[in-house]
Amino acid sequence: IASKSNEHILNLLDEVHYADIAELVEELNFNDGLYLIKLLDSEKTSDVIAELDEDDREKILKELSAKEIAEEIDELDTDDAADIIAELPEEQKEEVISHLEDVEHAKEIVELLRYDDDTAGGLMAKELVKVNENWNVLTCVKEMRAQAEEVTRVHSIYVVDDNDILKGRLSLKDLLTTSTKTAIKDVFIKKVDSVTVNEEDEEVARIMQKYDLEAIPVVDEIGRLVGRITIDDIVDVIKEEAEKDYQMAAGLVEDVEADDTIWELTRARLPWLFLGLLGGVGAARIMGLFEGALEDNAILFMFTPLIAAMAGNVGVQSSAIIVQGLANDNLKGSISNRLLKEFSLALVNGAVLAVVLFAFTWIWQSDFNTALAISISLFAVIIVAGIIGTFIPLFLDKRGIDPAIATGPFITTSNDIFGILIYFWIAKLILGF
Amino acid sequence: IASKSNEHILNLLDEVHYADIAELVEELNFNDGLYLIKLLDSEKTSDVIAELDEDDREKILKELSAKEIAEEIDELDTDDAADIIAELPEEQKEEVISHLEDVEHAKEIVELLRYDDDTAGGLMAKELVKVNENWNVLTCVKEMRAQAEEVTRVHSIYVVDDNDILKGRLSLKDLLTTSTKTAIKDVFIKKVDSVTVNEEDEEVARIMQKYDLEAIPVVDEIGRLVGRITIDDIVDVIKEEAEKDYQMAAGLVEDVEADDTIWELTRARLPWLFLGLLGGVGAARIMGLFEGALEDNAILFMFTPLIAAMAGNVGVQSSAIIVQGLANDNLKGSISNRLLKEFSLALVNGAVLAVVLFAFTWIWQSDFNTALAISISLFAVIIVAGIIGTFIPLFLDKRGIDPAIATGPFITTSNDIFGILIYFWIAKLILGF
Repeated sequence: IASKSNEHILNLLDEVHYADIAELVEELNFNDGLYLIKLLDSEKTSDVIAELDEDDREKILKELSAKEIAEEIDELDTDDAADIIAELPEEQKEEVISHLEDVEHAKEIVELLRYDDDTAGGLMAKELVKVNENWNVLTCVKEMRAQAEEVTRVHSIYVVDDNDILKGRLSLKDLLTTSTKTAIKDVFIKKVDSVTVNEEDEEVARIMQKYDLEAIPVVDEIGRLVGRITIDDIVDVIKEEAEKDYQMAAGLVEDVEADDTIWELTRARLPWLFLGLLGGVGAARIMGLFEGALEDNAILFMFTPLIAAMAGNVGVQSSAIIVQGLANDNLKGSISNRLLKEFSLALVNGAVLAVVLFAFTWIWQSDFNTALAISISLFAVIIVAGIIGTFIPLFLDKRGIDPAIATGPFITTSNDIFGILIYFWIAKLILGF
Repeated sequence: IASKSNEHILNLLDEVHYADIAELVEELNFNDGLYLIKLLDSEKTSDVIAELDEDDREKILKELSAKEIAEEIDELDTDDAADIIAELPEEQKEEVISHLEDVEHAKEIVELLRYDDDTAGGLMAKELVKVNENWNVLTCVKEMRAQAEEVTRVHSIYVVDDNDILKGRLSLKDLLTTSTKTAIKDVFIKKVDSVTVNEEDEEVARIMQKYDLEAIPVVDEIGRLVGRITIDDIVDVIKEEAEKDYQMAAGLVEDVEADDTIWELTRARLPWLFLGLLGGVGAARIMGLFEGALEDNAILFMFTPLIAAMAGNVGVQSSAIIVQGLANDNLKGSISNRLLKEFSLALVNGAVLAVVLFAFTWIWQSDFNTALAISISLFAVIIVAGIIGTFIPLFLDKRGIDPAIATGPFITTSNDIFGILIYFWIAKLILGF
């Protein structure tokens, strides 16, 4: 393919879906990818560019002139177009927009650029099919044909009044089965779910999932129809949300991928590792306080990694369940009920594990008191860790902070420190050093 | 509402969406919920039942006779119907099916029950609109109207030949704009993505996402059209997949929710905690081997929780990035390239953290050699933990095992042990005990 027999390549790629071509471009080295992009005709290129990874797209667009970019943008739906323009550097944005040929299209894109990325306005596209309630079915079908030209997939036909206020929707079925002279007013469905432009994207996702919607109309503050969001954009929101929680739990502060640069990966990973380091140093200082016990009770020090690990594991488990419950909006009951439940759960788990650990340490060290001290501490640590793991995400959520930050290194580190403190304190009570 | 003024309740709920009623039923106590379900008319009840949580549904269905259940099932789409029947106890299944009134519907449901839950066959519904390539547009529109009665939302019109083999799809736009005498053969689009009944659900999700499809036809082994999958079912697959990975990373072996019973939660949490306990005991035994160093180098023992925590954190970070890359199918390059990259990354992170730790311990203990031993060990541990965290999920994936089990307690526990072993071994080399 690198022999640059253009026609041959074009023939080969003619039948290939743009998503596959985008994948191919990402896998090729940069120059071959750029070459391929320039070779393809504009309609396909624009789709390929919209499909690329953000990083790869940025690199490719750098090599294109504002005019070339504008040509690609002209081919795209308004939502994809606005997303790509939003990624461009400030000074290039205006240049590209000024080169757009379709003035209507350009106006719509500029309007979309006004909205925040994570609101309904940022997700929506302007392409939709709308009809006036005062038309009859015949006018309606005619108008729809014209509008449908611009819209890739017709999801719903929205009905508006003379002021563009959203009134309802029209079912294709009804349209096919009513006489052409019937007024739209008499056949349309008056109930339609909608969201306002400023609604958060996660809330839009929740609504569309709950009611199994495939598209939802977006209205402005006074109820005028301004766009529509389709389920494929929502799939991306859901995936991103899930990945964000996952990454937080894994101790990554930024959205990173395996193929990012070492510098990006370091920036995402080092902060939490620093926190872990601080926690470890804290634990070491606490143990230093009990150095006097070292001679007679060396065995206690051997079990500190176990105590720290168990405190961390229990904390992560309880916080993860709470975080997931909050994300899916299916937590019922009060905070104190939650804590009580976690307490009973920790009692069960703690008792089982403490008995096992007691048996093991007694056999190993044949010292009843030491074994007792270690296992009772484990029991106490598990209960405290469970309660902290449950309380912190609930508390953060009440304060309007994303509870997902409470999972992962944050909870393990704080539980490490609490765990070791409780451990030595109980051991001291029992063994009396 | 508990005063049982039936008519008043029905009036109130008449306008309410079934998804909201399902939420209400879940929040009410069991008897009130059942009462509400029995009160509603059959069409709405069936949708409410399909929308309920699995646990709640099971309880409610227990209180209904096979005949009552069959009445609800008759109202549902084939995919939801098959899912609900699949949840029933063996002996009830046949009874419910025998009570179904619509024989066609019953046949389709029985066919769907044959397929595994996590395949395209298990996800698909039989409701679809299909036309024969030999019809003309007029016949086609007539047939479509009849078929559309049964289908809640028309996504695509599929074109088949006389043997029911999927040939392509028809665009609504073309149908609206061509003369009624044109043969379907001449207007339909010959290219259509499809999946076979045995395709895994995650692969279906990947395909539909990649090509931004809202529905995909399902064919059997010889290419006959047997059903279709819509994007709303795929949204559930994507969410479940993401939640499964998240729960594994948090150390939960089963799919649990905050509202499950203590017994279910214990079953999900205790196994990983046992693993953690074993790991901790292993770490204690390793430290026991170095007990001789205790007198002169007590400080070493204070830093074991730090070493274990850092090994765990680094391991979780690297494995999470790999697991996510594998899930999104965007890992490029060979295993050795990945390992090399993780190695360089760990060099950077390790060096920074080791220098900080060195400074701290030197100031605290004013013993150059001890500070050196501890920080060099940390450096080595971070590198080894990063490589283990990268290698294990890649290795599991190559072996066809879900790499997500490599995150969470599994990686932290094994890294704890390795970390402490490496730590004492390096300290021994430097401090010579």
